[in-house]
Amino acid sequence: MANKKITGRDIDFAKWYNDVVANAHLSKYSNVKGCIILEPNGYAIWEKIQQSLDKMFKESGHKNVAMPMLIPESLMKKEGELIEGFAPEAAWVTMGGSKLLEERMCIRPTSETLFSDYFSGAISSYRDLPLKYNQWCSVMRWEKETRPFLRSREFWWQEGHTIHETAKEAEEETNNMLNTYATFFRDYLAIPVISGKKTEKEKFAGAEYTLSIEALMYNGVSLQSGTSHYFGQKFSKAYDIKFLNRNNEQEYAYQTSWGVSSRMIGALIMVHGDDDGLVLPPKIAPTQVRIVPIKVEDELVGIAKEYYKKLKEAGISVELDTDDQTSAGFKFAESEVLGVPVRIEIGKRDLENGQITLSRRDTKDKLQVSKDCDIVAEVCSLMEKIQSNLLAKATERRDSMTYTAKTLSEFESIMNKTPGFIKADWCGDPNCECKVKEIRGTKSRVILENEQLLTGKCLVCEKPAKHLVLWGIQY
Amino acid sequence: MANKKITGRDIDFAKWYNDVVANAHLSKYSNVKGCIILEPNGYAIWEKIQQSLDKMFKESGHKNVAMPMLIPESLMKKEGELIEGFAPEAAWVTMGGSKLLEERMCIRPTSETLFSDYFSGAISSYRDLPLKYNQWCSVMRWEKETRPFLRSREFWWQEGHTIHETAKEAEEETNNMLNTYATFFRDYLAIPVISGKKTEKEKFAGAEYTLSIEALMYNGVSLQSGTSHYFGQKFSKAYDIKFLNRNNEQEYAYQTSWGVSSRMIGALIMVHGDDDGLVLPPKIAPTQVRIVPIKVEDELVGIAKEYYKKLKEAGISVELDTDDQTSAGFKFAESEVLGVPVRIEIGKRDLENGQITLSRRDTKDKLQVSKDCDIVAEVCSLMEKIQSNLLAKATERRDSMTYTAKTLSEFESIMNKTPGFIKADWCGDPNCECKVKEIRGTKSRVILENEQLLTGKCLVCEKPAKHLVLWGIQY
Repeated sequence: MANKKITGRDIDFAKWYNDVVANAHLSKYSNVKGCIILEPNGYAIWEKIQQSLDKMFKESGHKNVAMPMLIPESLMKKEGELIEGFAPEAAWVTMGGSKLLEERMCIRPTSETLFSDYFSGAISSYRDLPLKYNQWCSVMRWEKETRPFLRSREFWWQEGHTIHETAKEAEEETNNMLNTYATFFRDYLAIPVISGKKTEKEKFAGAEYTLSIEALMYNGVSLQSGTSHYFGQKFSKAYDIKFLNRNNEQEYAYQTSWGVSSRMIGALIMVHGDDDGLVLPPKIAPTQVRIVPIKVEDELVGIAKEYYKKLKEAGISVELDTDDQTSAGFKFAESEVLGVPVRIEIGKRDLENGQITLSRRDTKDKLQVSKDCDIVAEVCSLMEKIQSNLLAKATERRDSMTYTAKTLSEFESIMNKTPGFIKADWCGDPNCECKVKEIRGTKSRVILENEQLLTGKCLVCEKPAKHLVLWGIQY
Repeated sequence: MANKKITGRDIDFAKWYNDVVANAHLSKYSNVKGCIILEPNGYAIWEKIQQSLDKMFKESGHKNVAMPMLIPESLMKKEGELIEGFAPEAAWVTMGGSKLLEERMCIRPTSETLFSDYFSGAISSYRDLPLKYNQWCSVMRWEKETRPFLRSREFWWQEGHTIHETAKEAEEETNNMLNTYATFFRDYLAIPVISGKKTEKEKFAGAEYTLSIEALMYNGVSLQSGTSHYFGQKFSKAYDIKFLNRNNEQEYAYQTSWGVSSRMIGALIMVHGDDDGLVLPPKIAPTQVRIVPIKVEDELVGIAKEYYKKLKEAGISVELDTDDQTSAGFKFAESEVLGVPVRIEIGKRDLENGQITLSRRDTKDKLQVSKDCDIVAEVCSLMEKIQSNLLAKATERRDSMTYTAKTLSEFESIMNKTPGFIKADWCGDPNCECKVKEIRGTKSRVILENEQLLTGKCLVCEKPAKHLVLWGIQY
């Protein structure tokens, strides 16, 4: 039974997306232009993401801190490329109370400047290194077009900032954190990503280079899902982050930063969702199991409560729906819109046969099990299957939508028909990159450093190619 | 051995406080005027506070959300008293990129306006009520004088916002959340508080009434530590938060809000700290146990690792200090500055006697136990003792500094000699409240609603008294 309030995914993908966001009560636009509200269901997913990622960060030796949300303009300007990149979209505070400020301050669009300023006073010797910090916060970028989770003026994220004794160590950190993101996407979000290096044109303002993970949405549009930047000594020279090295000489530190954001919730919707709403991988679902007695009667509710207790004690996140104002059909639809991975249905007829029903959100399959089964084991086994099925399905779809193109016309016909990822050779010239952009705004996603060239000739100019590049239309 | 970098607590309390903050690396002033940085050790305490409180909020049916950080001026102005109260200290965003905004927006000083705006679109019937929401975020108030944790332009807090069907239910919520705070202070922070109602003069701008918990610091200065506000229908009328009630009539909802902030870290320092630094109650300490082998030798480190493993497996937060660049004395001093509740010292001589030493941070007592003891049980039992000893000591000190005064001159001589809490009768006239303020800035803390009057006459004007009031000098 498709949810009637949700537009078909294949009919109008953008509308479907907005319908899922609204019907699952994930987020709403506020009356603050371009700013969204994370409603309880949306925020609960964000909390699960935070908990899992935060654990990974701490296990690799990172510590959380909190920096101010405001950056004085002079501090922002010390590194030239960053301010150039972010000035057009900064929100400026010019008044405190009724007083005009001597110097205006912007709400952080990102915090390299603040961390650099802090780092410069925090280290004196190589013994103080590395410093590996992270903060969870929201940031502000004055975007014109906005879309819930994918692009909004304020969004929630984490930003890691580290400084190191050597370039080698900092580059390893840049790489490790990208791998952490890729692992998290695969193992928790059940989303396969492609990792690589951004081109000069697409890298972060102020970075030596930027690594990125790229995911493909159901409609073939790609989403830059996480980035990790290597800064070398750029910021440390601008902000005077110096230390006495092992040769007793002053040296500038080597720096990285890396971040993922609430945009991940958008990816979850667009990779796994279907015509009935959200589909959440068990490892990231705020509610993993919902128990629905088909009728709200003492016997059924009593049995339901026993299952609830067992599952809860086993650490499974479970809800029991005993609202007597709504029908079982309504309850089923609701648990589907919310993407709850497993539903346990307890009905009279089933019970007479000694059974209950486990219903999978991902495949809609219903599984009869004995009412005396080891419910924890059954549910855990089912959740594992759902988790791996979602990843397998997403991987298969992504692969089936990943093309190769040898010429620009071949490229164009693919993008006009069935967008997706396209692999194609590139000479390294930004002008050729711009030419590709004329095709539906396609941009280079990442340079695929470990893959062989296709033809050896640039897709655009046919001069010798330097890189195999992954291209895509982007959000 | 007193830490030489820390000024004596009885010599200069303000300097002692700053020294503890600096030496325990809790917080630093940033180059953003009036804004602090929460360093890893400070943020770790904040995380522990968040985890414990968040659990309590969720258990009582509250859900987390995230509202925008900006509030358009027109939205802010809908409720007159609130804007009047907060306008003088609002930070205003007037530009987005290079464009002047049509309407300026302030960075939230508190979010009643945003929640009210959201609530007005979120309910239609009594069946939708109550809505019990909370958010963890930072807020901005353009203060002139600042002090780490106690008062800074940006601070971190949680703000609960709820709407209800009846006044009774909303008033119960107001009360329950104050009790939640009092319980948290007692059971986690080991700080005894006094609960009561604020006077009209001291209540929150826009509230019908404000409840507050008040704690007394070591130096006799009181700290407003948490507040819970009952709004009645004030905001719901200004923001049109209406629902169809059980009589099928439109009715305005009844509203509350409540909050505690990173100021709690200041309270922890000033209630429990001593000349050697921070003293943390085990239930809120990011590191509960630190193991120090007296010499970094294989045998001692091997044994230390065994204890480490056992404690960690039991869910105790434990660190092992095997830095071979620093002496045991230095390590002891460091664990003391940081306020780690229990230190396990493993030395050769002790081991020859089949023993190890457990050192308490609160009393500095050292306890020899068999090296083959059940280390988890020993540590847990010690932590329980520390937790209850800290609360007992703080309660005893608070009680010994709580006075009564029957006349203004009696009041004045107490406050000039040994400040603390003073209980005294009050007629209810704000002019008398102002008179009391002339004595070292003393303010009414709370009305003690369930306590009997002392004399029946107002401390100031000698007219019949309405309330017994708790007074104090405040941070």
